[in-house]
Amino acid sequence: MIHTIESDWKGKMLFCVEEPGGTVSIDSDAEFGGEGKGVLPKPLMLTSLAGCTGMDVVSLLKKMRAEVADFKIEVKGHLTDEHPKYYDKVTVKYKFYGTDFKKDKIEKAVNLSIERYCGVMEMFRRFAEVTTSIEYFEK
Amino acid sequence: MIHTIESDWKGKMLFCVEEPGGTVSIDSDAEFGGEGKGVLPKPLMLTSLAGCTGMDVVSLLKKMRAEVADFKIEVKGHLTDEHPKYYDKVTVKYKFYGTDFKKDKIEKAVNLSIERYCGVMEMFRRFAEVTTSIEYFEK
Repeated sequence: MIHTIESDWKGKMLFCVEEPGGTVSIDSDAEFGGEGKGVLPKPLMLTSLAGCTGMDVVSLLKKMRAEVADFKIEVKGHLTDEHPKYYDKVTVKYKFYGTDFKKDKIEKAVNLSIERYCGVMEMFRRFAEVTTSIEYFEK
Repeated sequence: MIHTIESDWKGKMLFCVEEPGGTVSIDSDAEFGGEGKGVLPKPLMLTSLAGCTGMDVVSLLKKMRAEVADFKIEVKGHLTDEHPKYYDKVTVKYKFYGTDFKKDKIEKAVNLSIERYCGVMEMFRRFAEVTTSIEYFEK
């Protein structure tokens, strides 16, 4: 399967990409000649990772009947100092909210995504040291 | 420098990430339990690449006084067949629109981004075979 996107320059540092499901606007802040009318390109990589592994976890928890009340994923990427600046260290924190967590199933779901299913995680492993953790919050 | 994002699960397969400059919504289509209310996570990687190298090229062309009338970047990512599915082959087509192109400067700008400045390109090189090309369209 091949995925295709096309970015369309809108002047200054603004680019728009129309995708099924929505338009993504990318811009820089004023320091780099933009106007902050869109998201920065590099954090979109972190967003892609959170979305990909998040979808795995949600669908696995549903199959395992281990749903939670709420679920957030925090991704931090450390950029190298020298050009080309890339994420060399990345942490992914899976945060589950609810009561009576089925922790063995939740951990299994998270690990299946990390190790087997999440293609974005696989890409990240090729350029970054990736550290993952799970946290539970009773609510 | 550290970049941080947090995805917030909104039920089914929908996730939202609030970033300076906008909110990115991620969703799957109905086949995978979503409702198509957001973009797919993996193409966001391609979007990140187009944005990062696009910003480099625009700012370099401005410095070199080699502006063009319009500029698009098409990125195609070929996914592996087996899990974890990742982009193993990626093509990036830089498409310039205008008249009287300063082609030597344009090619220099594109190559500086590819080889030296674009951190997302550097990340892609670690997991994919990346092929780039330049096309000119008189308008």
